[in-house]
Amino acid sequence: MNILTEKSSTTLKGTVWRKTCFLSEFSEKAASAACLMGWLHDRALVPDPTFGGIVLRITLRDCSGLRDFVVTTKPFIDLLSTLEYESVIAIKVLGKEILDVKILARAKPAIFSPKVITDFSTIDLVVHRPLAIRTERMKAVLRVQDQIFTSARQFFHKEGFCELRPPILSPATDPGIRGAIGADVNFYGKKYKITTSMILYKQMAICSLEKVYAFSPNVRLEPVKTRQTGRHLAEFCQIDVEQAFINYHDAMALAERLLVAILSDVKNNCQKELKLLERSLTIPTRPFKKLTFQEALNILSKAGFKQLQQRKELPWEAEKMLSNTFDEPFWVTEFPYGSRGFYDRQDPNRPAVLRDFDLLYPAGFGEAISGSEREYLYPQVKKRMLEQGLPLDEYSWYLDMLQHGVPPSAGFGLGLERLTRYICGLENIWEATAFPKVPGVHSP
Amino acid sequence: MNILTEKSSTTLKGTVWRKTCFLSEFSEKAASAACLMGWLHDRALVPDPTFGGIVLRITLRDCSGLRDFVVTTKPFIDLLSTLEYESVIAIKVLGKEILDVKILARAKPAIFSPKVITDFSTIDLVVHRPLAIRTERMKAVLRVQDQIFTSARQFFHKEGFCELRPPILSPATDPGIRGAIGADVNFYGKKYKITTSMILYKQMAICSLEKVYAFSPNVRLEPVKTRQTGRHLAEFCQIDVEQAFINYHDAMALAERLLVAILSDVKNNCQKELKLLERSLTIPTRPFKKLTFQEALNILSKAGFKQLQQRKELPWEAEKMLSNTFDEPFWVTEFPYGSRGFYDRQDPNRPAVLRDFDLLYPAGFGEAISGSEREYLYPQVKKRMLEQGLPLDEYSWYLDMLQHGVPPSAGFGLGLERLTRYICGLENIWEATAFPKVPGVHSP
Repeated sequence: MNILTEKSSTTLKGTVWRKTCFLSEFSEKAASAACLMGWLHDRALVPDPTFGGIVLRITLRDCSGLRDFVVTTKPFIDLLSTLEYESVIAIKVLGKEILDVKILARAKPAIFSPKVITDFSTIDLVVHRPLAIRTERMKAVLRVQDQIFTSARQFFHKEGFCELRPPILSPATDPGIRGAIGADVNFYGKKYKITTSMILYKQMAICSLEKVYAFSPNVRLEPVKTRQTGRHLAEFCQIDVEQAFINYHDAMALAERLLVAILSDVKNNCQKELKLLERSLTIPTRPFKKLTFQEALNILSKAGFKQLQQRKELPWEAEKMLSNTFDEPFWVTEFPYGSRGFYDRQDPNRPAVLRDFDLLYPAGFGEAISGSEREYLYPQVKKRMLEQGLPLDEYSWYLDMLQHGVPPSAGFGLGLERLTRYICGLENIWEATAFPKVPGVHSP
Repeated sequence: MNILTEKSSTTLKGTVWRKTCFLSEFSEKAASAACLMGWLHDRALVPDPTFGGIVLRITLRDCSGLRDFVVTTKPFIDLLSTLEYESVIAIKVLGKEILDVKILARAKPAIFSPKVITDFSTIDLVVHRPLAIRTERMKAVLRVQDQIFTSARQFFHKEGFCELRPPILSPATDPGIRGAIGADVNFYGKKYKITTSMILYKQMAICSLEKVYAFSPNVRLEPVKTRQTGRHLAEFCQIDVEQAFINYHDAMALAERLLVAILSDVKNNCQKELKLLERSLTIPTRPFKKLTFQEALNILSKAGFKQLQQRKELPWEAEKMLSNTFDEPFWVTEFPYGSRGFYDRQDPNRPAVLRDFDLLYPAGFGEAISGSEREYLYPQVKKRMLEQGLPLDEYSWYLDMLQHGVPPSAGFGLGLERLTRYICGLENIWEATAFPKVPGVHSP
């Protein structure tokens, strides 16, 4: 008899095998029988004075957690004593009594077991994802991420933004992905790319809806060496936001409200998960501290970083050092002209700087958000593209669009996995998503 | 002076140009000045008795709709009289009086204008998306889709499901995409595919969280001829759902609750949009009607379709005919063994049929949902894969996972764009998303 061959309308009795509740909902004191299903997480033969002999203690695991049961019946002890961990089983219980046991799926010996994973930095957690995803730790991380999705959407809904299904393939996409390369796809004979950022599409969408956001997939094939940074994935998700007719100060204020809303919701609703992750969250006060790029350079110079005046960007080590000196998220604004993508707007009053911004997490977690006001006028964009040596013909639809009335706007992208990593206090970003793709690593 | 160079803290007065409200919020009766921004949608010189001469009536458009203004001042009439449609402008008004006008972005003459688009089936709407997305009709469609996102999430949250960030690239993905081909990507020297369905990953995730869903991107390079069906896109989004320890009846009941929740929310919250789209929605009663595949064949045979007994699937014309005979969504269940992907579970009691299901929309809209109980035991899956001639080595991670305790489960995928198309009553699916990719068409 098979677990799923019975009609869904049948209630639990006799031979019926239907999961009646999660382990966390089960009460031994209930008079009625229950059917529980999950994974064999642990097992030990233990002496039992009441029973007057040896009994089998099993730990059953389901999505709600772990729970111990004592098996006293000889045939069930025999059945379960040699079963491999991670096998899927069902038990029928009446109060404390185990009425019946069924094996739903036998496991083979595991390379490593969710119950003994202690090293959270090993690449094995990526390659053997089907086992690694089963830990209580990963469940906590994914539940926090679920809350991030929910909070972000509630926030945007309240603020009047419209959610879009993001583009997956593009004839042209964001070239500003320093060091990484985009993934090419043959789209009916033409070379397309998987979106590396939906900036160009956001500008299209605000011409219709003005306030838009998306959870956009991004593929950036980063150099293999970035595996060591703990903060680079080859595919990730951005919470991508754009609003027409606002400036970069407005966009920063919007991002601050968004981040505080998400952090507050996680703190309020994910106490169990944060406790398991040993993470205490503080809610930053708005407005966040702001450094101009020049001020950031000054701090770094004083701290001993050399030759920073020549640089147009913050090197990775400098960004981490800066991040380590703060205990709340903070802005770095007005990066120098020439340092960013053609779509970061040049300040018309101060041509040496861009009207853009990065948000950095504190405590070494580094970049959270990157955003800007946009170049929205055709002549300026064309000039910037030519300066950066971009092939104008690849961007033909975009350059054409700019001549059909694109409004001034500002927006940003907030990396979902980096936010999850920061909130959960994870060393490695490949813990911050269900199905991580790590640069250079072949995994599910 | 530029629109975005002023401090965000400055209030509207004198020379400050900041959008103060949407057109729909603006009241001529308000005593204070307002600054409005949008697109020049229409324009006409009209006689005005009060003014005693000719004035310029302009229609301004923003995300909230259209609004007419009368320009009576000579320099502003001159400024706006020759401006191309779709130019982005700002106006300052005090009551009915226009105090000032500024051109934010000049447009060149448009190939076609959002104000005159009437043919909603032309492929021009895809190629010239930056203009087509600006119509009141597209705004209504995208606002309905935003409601679908919101409703689906609220539903899943209430039912205890966890949202996942879906995989984008896979070493192996769903092969069951009849006629279409997957998009290959070089992932650090190995051939990966963009996900065509996240079925394999859903089975991984339920081993951790049991009840999961995702808004998953799918790329399927359909044959160019499918462009005529009105229901095929080369990239789309699936609302992908899976739950451990349930059977296919449970999954169908879950899908019914989901669909009714979404339809009810759209009906309640998108009255303005449905009216514009001339669409009246009826909320179907649960449970939906169920036909077995065999019953569907019988209906079709009686209707004159020949040689259907030999078939293992419903041909497209038959599915449309069937859909046209119903006025509420309905199920077709238990497709014959051999007709579907290896993951649709064979009925252990009736080996000739699968424990799977499709939901069809009524009125010719065709397939809404496809789902099933899953093959979850290694020997069965391997047997099915071999029967279908699949290369086992490509699925190595998946076959390995099946030997580590994968539970019985059921789930489904609900196409976001097809749902949007049905709800909005659209002839062509390329109206049902912001950035459509149509088979064989090169577009943004």
